[in-house]
Amino acid sequence: MTNPVLVEVTRGERVESRHRGAVAVIDARGKKLLAIGDIDAAVFPRSAVKAIQALPLVESGAADAFGFRARELALSQASHGGETGHVAGVSAMLSAIGLDETALECGAHAPSHGLSAAELIRRGKAPSQLHNNCSGKHANFLALARHLGIDHRGYVGAAHPVQVAITAALSSMTGASHGAENCGTDGCSIPTYAVPLSSLALGFARLATGIGLERERADAARKIYQAAVSEPFYVAGTGRIDTDLMKHLGGAALVKTGAEGVFCAAIAGLGLGVALKADDGATRAAEAMMAAVVARLLPEHTEFLQRWTNAAVVTSRGARVGEVRALAAPFQARA
Amino acid sequence: MTNPVLVEVTRGERVESRHRGAVAVIDARGKKLLAIGDIDAAVFPRSAVKAIQALPLVESGAADAFGFRARELALSQASHGGETGHVAGVSAMLSAIGLDETALECGAHAPSHGLSAAELIRRGKAPSQLHNNCSGKHANFLALARHLGIDHRGYVGAAHPVQVAITAALSSMTGASHGAENCGTDGCSIPTYAVPLSSLALGFARLATGIGLERERADAARKIYQAAVSEPFYVAGTGRIDTDLMKHLGGAALVKTGAEGVFCAAIAGLGLGVALKADDGATRAAEAMMAAVVARLLPEHTEFLQRWTNAAVVTSRGARVGEVRALAAPFQARA
Repeated sequence: MTNPVLVEVTRGERVESRHRGAVAVIDARGKKLLAIGDIDAAVFPRSAVKAIQALPLVESGAADAFGFRARELALSQASHGGETGHVAGVSAMLSAIGLDETALECGAHAPSHGLSAAELIRRGKAPSQLHNNCSGKHANFLALARHLGIDHRGYVGAAHPVQVAITAALSSMTGASHGAENCGTDGCSIPTYAVPLSSLALGFARLATGIGLERERADAARKIYQAAVSEPFYVAGTGRIDTDLMKHLGGAALVKTGAEGVFCAAIAGLGLGVALKADDGATRAAEAMMAAVVARLLPEHTEFLQRWTNAAVVTSRGARVGEVRALAAPFQARA
Repeated sequence: MTNPVLVEVTRGERVESRHRGAVAVIDARGKKLLAIGDIDAAVFPRSAVKAIQALPLVESGAADAFGFRARELALSQASHGGETGHVAGVSAMLSAIGLDETALECGAHAPSHGLSAAELIRRGKAPSQLHNNCSGKHANFLALARHLGIDHRGYVGAAHPVQVAITAALSSMTGASHGAENCGTDGCSIPTYAVPLSSLALGFARLATGIGLERERADAARKIYQAAVSEPFYVAGTGRIDTDLMKHLGGAALVKTGAEGVFCAAIAGLGLGVALKADDGATRAAEAMMAAVVARLLPEHTEFLQRWTNAAVVTSRGARVGEVRALAAPFQARA
């Protein structure tokens, strides 16, 4: 099927560009509240499932053993901006487990936070692996390896015990198969598995509620959720939708972006999971879509959400000449 | 109509994201060689029509009067990277017409060329209007105003004599109406008019051949084309597809990107114009599409073009894990 246009980019009175996509909002028993487009087609969730990938860290006892509290658990599920606080936090996590930056296998890239990238340039420093947006997740993987007493080297490989544990958590939470047939390699070198949006939404509904989970997993899910919503700066960073939205919602939702236009959320009070993807992989579209979903589910925040449901397109002189706008109708439909 | 998928982004063995779009390849008499998707729908061409917007500068005698040669004519139609050579060139154009950076009305933004942006940061300097990718086009507009002996202030406004002249050239070359009903404001504050891809392609076919143009306009078109293909660095810059493709093709084509996934070309030897747009505005898709069109029209360059028809998706450690690939079949069809 052809997914519908969900986001339009306007200039003056006209539509300049269009984004298609699919959206699933599901409860922990699999009941669909909203289904737009093909929610059974498999998509790579990329970084959107980092909260689920953090479950083994907590369940195994590794988080407690290394003294990881909310801040570290937030970093463990972060796509952070490489800001000073993020780098210091990941560095401290590595120290706590007796390793350092050289143990990371994520690769280096410049901080996505512009001012932090500029500061590195001013100081004549090259970005390190600590600046990689996934470095907290990788520190979490290393902590799991250390706690299990296994050789951490090669922990990014699909057959390494760390990834086997992570993949088992993903498979169990989403109910979708995770194997060689749907495996690709993520930008930080770990496996990423293409699964239906409906499965991802189910996984987040379970994360939000604990429904259907064993007690240890439900406890771990609650800790991970609370860590994200209580330390949202450490999940993303300054000026980022994940952080700003979680700050504003005050615990009502855990939200997490992934690359290529994926966005997931767990909405605890409503017991719902959300998973969406812009077909073309555009972040601006995914942000507008998620804001439209949250406005549907938590309408009291509609005005705040307009910064994303109706984001400004501006000139280099700052004049507003268009907008990136989520279409209203599809998000108001019933499943 | 729904435009077809023309570009797929893969990860491992799977398609991760998809880009739809439309493509028109037309000769100067309006004969279609290739028509993919809805080529009659209006799109904002943005910076892709800068070559046409440079015609009045040459026709009016302003370019000759101010001693503008190939390099300045290339900058006049550029979306440059804000590299040292670009900034110096535009600065010299402004000096030649007795103005300076303060006369520009494009606004400032950081150089799109990463190393040049980093150099500014290292030197503790803010980007100026000279770094705006459109500053050469704006210097061209100012030169026209000075040559016509009119007040240059407000030259970005649709009713200013400079924009009236530019709009008349666009309308005449494309055969499409340009008025308030299809006008938006571009990122550099000048008007941009939404017209069909078929009209844009026709305009570029006329630019490539001079067919149907008055002698002065045909001469101006030839000068502008020759300037772009002989000084391609000044049209875009280091690492940019426009520059690298024109360098490689050695005069066979003038190619010019625009924002929001637009890409146009004039192919002199074949007498063809090309205009395309990725529906969602993605540059990566527009680049793959243009490379696929050029591979269709000039198949001897197919191997070289693979850097864009099959661009690598890599991890932060540099491993190739997917590609941005133009689908072959649509580009091989007959109109």
